[in-house]
Parts: sequence; C-alpha cells; structure tokens
Amino acid sequence: MNIADKLIQNTIKTKNPSVIGLDPDIGKIPACYKMNVQSKNPLEAVADVIYAFNRDIIDTIADLVPAVKPQMAFYEKYGSHGVAAFEKTVAYAKAKGLVVIEDAKRNDIGNTAQAYADGHLGVVELLDGTWSPSIDADFLTVTPFLGTESLYPFVNVCINHNKGVFVLVKTSNTSSGEIQDVVASDGMTISQSIAKYVSEQADVCAGKHGYSSIGAVVGATYPEEAVSLRKIMPKSYFLVPGYGAQGGGAKDILPCFNPDGLGAIVNSSRGILYTHMSSEERARCSRQEYLLSVQAAAKQMQEDIYAVLKNKYRQMIY
Amino acid sequence: MNIADKLIQNTIKTKNPSVIGLDPDIGKIPACYKMNVQSKNPLEAVADVIYAFNRDIIDTIADLVPAVKPQMAFYEKYGSHGVAAFEKTVAYAKAKGLVVIEDAKRNDIGNTAQAYADGHLGVVELLDGTWSPSIDADFLTVTPFLGTESLYPFVNVCINHNKGVFVLVKTSNTSSGEIQDVVASDGMTISQSIAKYVSEQADVCAGKHGYSSIGAVVGATYPEEAVSLRKIMPKSYFLVPGYGAQGGGAKDILPCFNPDGLGAIVNSSRGILYTHMSSEERARCSRQEYLLSVQAAAKQMQEDIYAVLKNKYRQMIY
Repeated sequence: MNIADKLIQNTIKTKNPSVIGLDPDIGKIPACYKMNVQSKNPLEAVADVIYAFNRDIIDTIADLVPAVKPQMAFYEKYGSHGVAAFEKTVAYAKAKGLVVIEDAKRNDIGNTAQAYADGHLGVVELLDGTWSPSIDADFLTVTPFLGTESLYPFVNVCINHNKGVFVLVKTSNTSSGEIQDVVASDGMTISQSIAKYVSEQADVCAGKHGYSSIGAVVGATYPEEAVSLRKIMPKSYFLVPGYGAQGGGAKDILPCFNPDGLGAIVNSSRGILYTHMSSEERARCSRQEYLLSVQAAAKQMQEDIYAVLKNKYRQMIY
Repeated sequence: MNIADKLIQNTIKTKNPSVIGLDPDIGKIPACYKMNVQSKNPLEAVADVIYAFNRDIIDTIADLVPAVKPQMAFYEKYGSHGVAAFEKTVAYAKAKGLVVIEDAKRNDIGNTAQAYADGHLGVVELLDGTWSPSIDADFLTVTPFLGTESLYPFVNVCINHNKGVFVLVKTSNTSSGEIQDVVASDGMTISQSIAKYVSEQADVCAGKHGYSSIGAVVGATYPEEAVSLRKIMPKSYFLVPGYGAQGGGAKDILPCFNPDGLGAIVNSSRGILYTHMSSEERARCSRQEYLLSVQAAAKQMQEDIYAVLKNKYRQMIY
C-alpha cells in the first residue's frame, strides 16, 4: 500500500489527523521508569529507560492516533545506545500498525544524501553484496538548504521503497522567516519555491486517495503562509508542528487541511507527554496513572482538532 | 586549549591546512578488509569493517594532516552499529592527536537543537542526574535553514565546552545557489547574511591566534563567493569542501585563506580514499599496498596546497 494511503487509512479509522511526537527527555520521564535499571553503562541505561517509556506510550495510544513521530535528536544524543532505542521504537510502533515519521531533518549532497536516504528509508549494501533495510522508517523529514539536487535521492528512494518525506517548507519557530520568508527575484518566497518543487514531485508518489507521500513541513504558527502553501501543494501531505506547547491552536491548523479533512497531520509532543502533569506528579505517579493521563491528553487533542475540522469542513470523509 | 588553536597548531606542525574525510563506502573499501569478519549480524559486520578500515587510515595519516572529517551519513546508514563505529573512530582519532570534525549537518529548533548540541559536542544528562560527554566530536557542521535562533544552542555549547561548529554558508554543490544565492531586500545574499551572523558570534570563541571556532562551510567550487565571504568573516575558520573529486583545484581554495596561511582547512574524501586505485586494484591489493597509496595521495594533496599557498602568501607563518 502507498504509505500516504496507509496514513490516510489510519487517520480515517481513528478520526484523528494527529501524530504524537516521541521526544524522550530523561529529565521529564516519570521517576517510576527510572528505577531498578540494569545496564552495562550509563548511556545504555538511559536508552533502556527511553525504550521502556516509548513502548508504554505506544501501547497506550496505538488505537487513538494514526502515527508517531520520534525525534532523532533525543535518541542520538545518547550515541549508538540511543540510536538502538530509536530502532527498536520504530520496529515496535510499526508492529502496532502505526505509521512512523522519523523527524531527523537530514540532508547533504550527492552520494551523502543517497546514504541518508538509503539508511533511513531504503536499503543498505552488506558485505556479501546483498542489500538490507536499516532504520526503515516510513517517512523522514528532510532539509532543502542545499537545493533540489540534494532532495532527489530521497524522492527516488520513496518511489522505489514506497516511503515518504516531509521537506521543510515553513517551520514553526520564531526565526524561521530569516531565510524562509526571503523573496527571490521571481516574486516567490524561499518557502514558496520549495513548495513548488515539492508539488512537482508529488505526482510520482500519489496514492489512491490522490495524496502524495512527497510532503512538506508547514508550521501551525503561520496560518497565513499555510493558505498560500496549501494552494501551491494541493496534493502533498503536510506535517504540521507548532500545535500546543509552541502556541498554535486548533483553528490555526485549518488552512493546512483540504475540505475532505485530509492532507495534513498535526503533531504534538510535549503537550501529550509532559505538560499534563507537574514535575512533582511525575516524580510520584505510577506508570498506570501516568499512562492514563497520556491517554486523556491524546483523546483531548483528537476531540479539539476533530471538532474544529468538522465545524468548517462539513463534507469531510471521516 | 581553544579548539581553533589546536587546529592551527596541528596545521603548522604538518604544514598542511587540509583534512581527510572518512567516508567509508563498503562498495569501495579494498576487499582485503572484508575477509574473515566475525560479527553477530550483517549490519554489525559492516560496521566492524568500517572501524578496522578507519583505524588503518588514521594510523597512516595521523602525522600528515591536522584533522579528519568523518561524514556521519556513511555510518548511521548502518543504524546503531554504524554509529558505534563512528564513536570508536572519533575516540581513536582524538587519541592520535587529530582534531575531529563531525560532518552531520544537524539542526532543529529550541530544545531539539539543544539535544543535538549536547549529544554531539557537549554533555548529556544521565539517570542519576549527572552529565557525561556522548559523541564528543571537536567540531560539528550545522545547517542554518531554521534561522539564527536554531544556531544559538550550538554556539552556547561551543563556549561552555571548548568546541566548534562550521555553519553551512555556501556549499560546494551545483544547486547550492537555489537558496543560498537569493538576494534579500537588504541587498545581501542568504549566504552573506548567514556569514554576517557567524562573524558576529566569532569573538566569543576566539583563540590566541585570533581565529574563532565558530566557523563556516564555504565550497572550493565558488571562489568568487569565497572572496566576499572571507571579507565578511575575517576571523572565522572555513571548512572548504569541493576540492578534488568535486572539481575544485588548488588555486580555487586561495580566497578562503588569509595571508598568514590560516583561516581555512580544505577537505578531500574520495580523492584520498578511493580514486588513486582502480576498483580492480582494490579487489586485489594488500592492506599495506593500499595504505601506501593513501599516504602518497595525502602527501600529494599537502604538496599541491602548500605550493599554491606559499606562492601567493609569502608571509605565511608555516
């Protein structure tokens, strides 16, 4: 199945166009996860806690959301042990039927971009000359700063291995405009130019719902820009950060969607994992208490987004 | 010692402002490294070959060059096993007195950028609340697409842990201009604006030679742009890719240097590791034959660059 179709199928099933970010922060993970850890070295011990924590989160939200978005920075900061926890998290989430969006904002040029594409989404060459999947995420976020030539290896791997990318087009942070809003001589902003490229590539990975797995990151914090970007990229899926902790509200995400209620998936990380309990509560709670609060936060986000969407797009298909 | 000073000290000692890129490509590593490998799984087997290969390369060139630049993409493509080989390579090269420039082109926003900075250059929090170095490279390449706010955590970690960054300013590839050459309303290109920011940060990490470890990537393939960027960033170190296999010649790198012969370090990866032997030769050679040819290629690069620099900058300090 086309991976955009799988994302859509999961979205319709859960009536939820949202994704939960798996951003493990050892300072914020409840204390009950950090007791009695038996590991060879201290970095491995952290990685073991992260994986146990993720597994519980995934079990809790697997029927509520279509996808998870592990942020690689929070794993690779613990080196190879952290990356091992990342790999196990990807495999566990996929086994539970979730689509896995790897947020790693990778890119480089030529054969180096190819190496990133092969390792994160495609297959890598082994000693005997055969090829094997490696990290094997479903989607990967990629950075366009090096130009369209650097994006091509990723598009190509998406075609050959039925994967997807979200190209950074307009990010949610306050300084995103310094480069992304600059207007070129053709009258388009940098964001709009990248959007045009993404849209041109979209057809090659379009699924039966008409949406492409060659997608874009468009922040919830810039709803006006989202209107113009949706027009330029009518058939690309949007990954929408900035909801919740970063200040974007449910109404701000509306321009990222099409009237069918599809075309975007809204991320929340801290708002689901950490902000619903105080640090004092996280120091004392049981796993069950913590996970019930995660479940409640995920359900609340689904209800908020679904209500706003349904109110505006009465013809949406779920 | 300020890490820019260490780089300069190594450069003066070797009379060599170049860096060898450790870009392991299993399809090109000589066959003699791929025999009799005993590993638990096929990705680990590749990682073991990569580390054995790197160790030999490092032993061969440690007295000839000031630094090595392992490209993370070629390691993390093999997941956690590849990252383990990367970590061992960093430690081995540092133990041999080499400066290690990690080429990973990382970045993100807010606490995610902080996680990258902590993991690659700084220290990470452990379960008991203490902090430990993780990957612990000397320098890291970072991408500025998300704006100056995303660069601040890296600058801060450089200050606190005596490390360095090379911010992508003008990359060596053919499509680099699509974003980097766009002229903003203030009349500056995107590259020049980033250069201005880098230069403003440079003072905080300046060493006794007057150079800063808050540096820039400036491709050898755009010597005209390098002239203007050198003027904007007089005291920042430049990491210069594009020499050799990508088409930049020894004369093209001149604008990246100051008249003291310092201020830049020129990278070659494929030109040292692979292109001096045919694939037939790499299939049959012994380790010793291969390493002698690597040594010869590294010496040739030193001679070429040194001759061109000395011819232009007669007052250079080494």
